[in-house]
Formats: sequence, C-alpha cells, structure tokens
Amino acid sequence: MSGGEVAVALDVGGTGMKCALVGADGAVRHSERHPTDAGRGPDAVVETILTVADGLAAKARADGLTPTALGIVVPGVVDEARGVALWSANVGFRDVPLRELASRRLGLPTALGHDVRAGGLAEARLGAGRNAGHVLFVAIGTGIAAAHVVAGAAATGAHGAAGELGHILVRPDGPVCGCGRPGCLEAIASASAVAHRYAELAATATGTATGTGITSDDGSAARPDPGRTMVSAAEVAARAAAGEQLATRVWREAVEALADGLATGQALFDVETIVLGGGLAQAGAGLFDPLRAALRDRLTFHREPRLVPAALGDEAGCLGAALLALDQLEKR
Amino acid sequence: MSGGEVAVALDVGGTGMKCALVGADGAVRHSERHPTDAGRGPDAVVETILTVADGLAAKARADGLTPTALGIVVPGVVDEARGVALWSANVGFRDVPLRELASRRLGLPTALGHDVRAGGLAEARLGAGRNAGHVLFVAIGTGIAAAHVVAGAAATGAHGAAGELGHILVRPDGPVCGCGRPGCLEAIASASAVAHRYAELAATATGTATGTGITSDDGSAARPDPGRTMVSAAEVAARAAAGEQLATRVWREAVEALADGLATGQALFDVETIVLGGGLAQAGAGLFDPLRAALRDRLTFHREPRLVPAALGDEAGCLGAALLALDQLEKR
Repeated sequence: MSGGEVAVALDVGGTGMKCALVGADGAVRHSERHPTDAGRGPDAVVETILTVADGLAAKARADGLTPTALGIVVPGVVDEARGVALWSANVGFRDVPLRELASRRLGLPTALGHDVRAGGLAEARLGAGRNAGHVLFVAIGTGIAAAHVVAGAAATGAHGAAGELGHILVRPDGPVCGCGRPGCLEAIASASAVAHRYAELAATATGTATGTGITSDDGSAARPDPGRTMVSAAEVAARAAAGEQLATRVWREAVEALADGLATGQALFDVETIVLGGGLAQAGAGLFDPLRAALRDRLTFHREPRLVPAALGDEAGCLGAALLALDQLEKR
Repeated sequence: MSGGEVAVALDVGGTGMKCALVGADGAVRHSERHPTDAGRGPDAVVETILTVADGLAAKARADGLTPTALGIVVPGVVDEARGVALWSANVGFRDVPLRELASRRLGLPTALGHDVRAGGLAEARLGAGRNAGHVLFVAIGTGIAAAHVVAGAAATGAHGAAGELGHILVRPDGPVCGCGRPGCLEAIASASAVAHRYAELAATATGTATGTGITSDDGSAARPDPGRTMVSAAEVAARAAAGEQLATRVWREAVEALADGLATGQALFDVETIVLGGGLAQAGAGLFDPLRAALRDRLTFHREPRLVPAALGDEAGCLGAALLALDQLEKR
C-alpha cells in the first residue's frame, strides 16, 4: 500500500458513527462523525452506514487518495469470520450480513469487526499497549467489555462473543446485572453502576436522615444531592478524591470489584499490559492508583501486568476498523 | 515424518513420569512410567528426566524406530518460548533451562511445555475436543487449571502462566486458597477442597451432636465417619448420588462454584467445547448433569458450550508433549 492509499473506517455506535480515512501507517488523513439514529430501525442504520462509507471513499478519491479497503466495527456479538453482525441491542442489528452488503456497495474488500475488540487492537498496535505482545484492553463505560490481543490479533471466540469481562461473577450477593444474573462486574464497576449506586445510597442516607456516611471529612462540603441530578461516575470519583465519605465508599467498592475482575483476567490471560479505556478510565490517578494497589494485593504467584490508561481516546474503535481493513488486504 | 519416526514424550509430575514413544498420527508405540522422587531435589529430578528420555530414544532405535524430536511437559509456570521451567513447587524446579539441557543430552530438537496446556492440546486435537476450533480444557484434581486451545495451539500467556482458572475469585467470603487469597475456585471445587469441606462439616455436625445434615434421606445409611479416614471427592459424589444430605450439600457447593468458574471462562473465551479432565471429572453423570444445568442457568446472552468429559485419561499430558515435539519440527 503506497502513501496515497487509505482504508475507509467506520465505528458504528448506538449514538454516533466515528469515521475516518486511515493510511497504512495508522495516520488519520480525514475524519468525520455522523449520528446513528438507531431508533429508525436496522435497515435505515445499514443504509446510513453504506452511504457514509461510500461518501468517505468518494472523499478519498476527490483528495487524490486511493481507498483500498473498508473496515466497519459494531457493538454486540459479531461473527468476524462470516462478516455478520449477529446481535446488537444498541443499533438494533440481528443477523445483518454487513460485510457482504458493504463490499457489494463499495466494491472494496471489507472487514466487519467488533467495536471493543477493534479498540483493543488499535491500543495494542498503535496505542498504550504498543510493544507488548500480550495485551488486555478493558473498556469501562455504560458497560464493561474487554479484548485480549496477542501478537496483534484480538481473540474473537467461537461465536464472536469473547471478552465479556463485564459479565463475570465478582459478587455473588451483589446487584442484578442488566443481563439478568446477580453480581456481574458490570453491575458494580461500570460508570453507570457507580452513578446508580451513589444515587441509591445518597437517597437512603437522606431518607433515614442519620447523616452518617454522607458528610465529607471536614463535615461540611460535597454533600450528595439525591433526587435532583444524577451524579456521574466521574463526579463520584472527584468527590471521593475530595474526601466525601459516601463517594469514597462507592468508589472503593467499584475499584475493588474492578481489581477482582482484572485479577481474574490476569489469572486466565497472563498479559504484559492491561489498557483501561472508556469514560471511567479518564478518572486518572483517582482510579489508577487505588486500582494498581488493589490488583497487586490480589496477585499471588501471577506476574503483575502494567496497568495503563488508553492512549487513543474514542478514536480507538475507528482506528481498529482501519487495521482490520488493512489486515485482510495482507491476507489476500 | 514417516511411519517409523516417533517423538519421545515425557509428562513429569510431582509423583511420577508418564513417558511414551508417539507416532505422527498420535498413536502410542510404547509407554512406560517412572517415579519422580521429587524429594531428591531438582538436580536429581532433571538427571532422571534426561536418563529416562535417553532410554526412550534408545528403546525406539532398538525397536527399529527413529526418534526425531523430544517433548517434555512439567507443572507450574513454564516459559515455552525460552524453554525454561520457571517455577514448579511439585517437582522443585526454579528457572531450570530444561529444553537446552535435554536437547544437548539427546541431540534431538526439544520442546518444553506445561502439563495442563499439553493435556488440553491433546484433548483438543486427539480427544474430546476434536473438531472444535475453540476448546477450554479444565483439569480438576488436587488443584484446578485450564488450557485455552484455539486452532490447535494452547495459549501460554506472556509469562507462561495463562489458564489459572483455579485462582479466579468465585466466593469473596469463601475459604482461603493455598495461594493465599480467599474465595478462589480451587479452594471450593477442587477434589481436595471437596474432601476437606466434607470432613470439616462432618466433624462439626458430629461435634455438635445435633445430627442434622448428616443423615441420608432414609435417615439411616451413609453416615460420614469424621476423624477416621478422609473421604475422597469421588466418595462424596457417590454419597451425594445416594442421597446423603451432607454430601449433597458439599457436592452442590462445589458444582455451583465450578459452574460460576466455567461461566466466567465462557464469558471471556467463548469456546465451542469445554472438556473436563482430572480425577473429579470421573464422577460422570453425578458431576456433568448438575453442572450442565448450573452452567446453563448462568449463561444469558453467551452461547452454551458443549460440556464433555476428557477422552484421553492421564495420558493426555504425555500425548500433548509428543504434539509439542512434532509441532516444532514443522516450524523448523
């Protein structure tokens, strides 16, 4: 692939699509974003994906570039070998043969992938996991999912469903997860779980009017305001850092559950580097310092992995889509 | 490799060594067993390994066969890429460059591997996981360990320590594991954990003399006999099958913990087939029937894997050693 050749890359989410033209060196030549409008139904979403991809290829040609391959990544369960989006609640897909549809429309060799696995691929090859042969990428946002990347390839599993770190048991007596089972990691340590847990405890604390557990160390500032606005996980982290007792408790519960989940991941995968991405990872030292300590506590004979924040931000999935597109060119 | 060519294969355990001459088709041409006598220290064990391997190669030649490669597998943490047994409590190894020592002594290309990963490799390619592209092999005996085999290769991890399914958290308030952490799967569901738990509860029940929980359904037979002989996990399974209350309780606890562990494995690996080996897997329907049901309960959106008993018995590790030996010939 010469300097003028680019991959067309789309990362399709429930809310928006991150799209780019990416060179073989991983450099982004052009990027754009579009709404997904998933409420319109899967057919309309597919049509938007194809139109946007076609437009990107046209844009490349207009700029004197040559689009050589297309990569599309979506959330949910993706059969990468067959190129089918098996199931995705976020975008309403069920058994959509997206690779075939897209390659027919654009006339380009096309790869279909999974958003988190693509993000992990990009972090492992271009981002925070660079130079590590074995990487576990963990995306923590509304949910929690992971990608295990070895030698530059992300494990897909037999049915396209590998890496569901959010749905491993960490607290048998814990809250019920969205998947229906109690005690999943995601039900305790995802950004939304942290926000909900804080709101719940704040409401309880106010309801009983004991005042215990909700005052900060100096007994005054940073009281939670239950029933008004939902406090974000980032805000819970900030309040915990400021010493607010309730936030400290909720944050510690999340960090400890997360450490349990990462320790399980390390016991099974034995990686060199764990890369944390997604919204929660932006909590910085407020997350990484206690999490490193808690993870270290849990590792006995296992080797401790490097624990680092993601480097590519929300472009990781789109870059991973480009890598998948370029990889299949090499395999041809 | 022609019909007369064989791999020399050794599976070195804490108690004994299983050794064989194996053809490229996986057929065992000759097998023998030797004591390890680990108490003699690592140097003596290494010397025995080399002498036994040398003897096997001589035996092959005497029988008109041609030994073309050597495979040795050991327990613990094994760096397969460097050919070093990093750590093994059972046989007293620490940083033993066994591949180099063996290839120098025998003059044969040598592969060093991990016993459970080799067993998984053999089950995936020659045994109960045949024809499945993605297999999780779980060995349940004194401890619990796993091997994730994809496309005929077992994942080693970055430091040779992948697959430690026995040391994932399943019961945060559970018993302390040999590794020092509370609630590991191995501390609840290994054969030794089942035997210990039964003895412990039987002693308690007898000690308090309430008699509750220790009579069988017909109120008479199959009472545990604490303080005399330690009842094996197999016997606990048999007593549970016969309806003894205490055994039923201990067995159910183990099966449920095991189901939690397998569900975590399936969430992360997404395999087609889970192969259970080791002593506990010989409990047959008494294990597989309730375990399948408990695993099914725990799987929500994941695909349910086939759950089958190992097919190769205690020869799996030795066969896997032969496969590792033959595989490296192909890579040369």
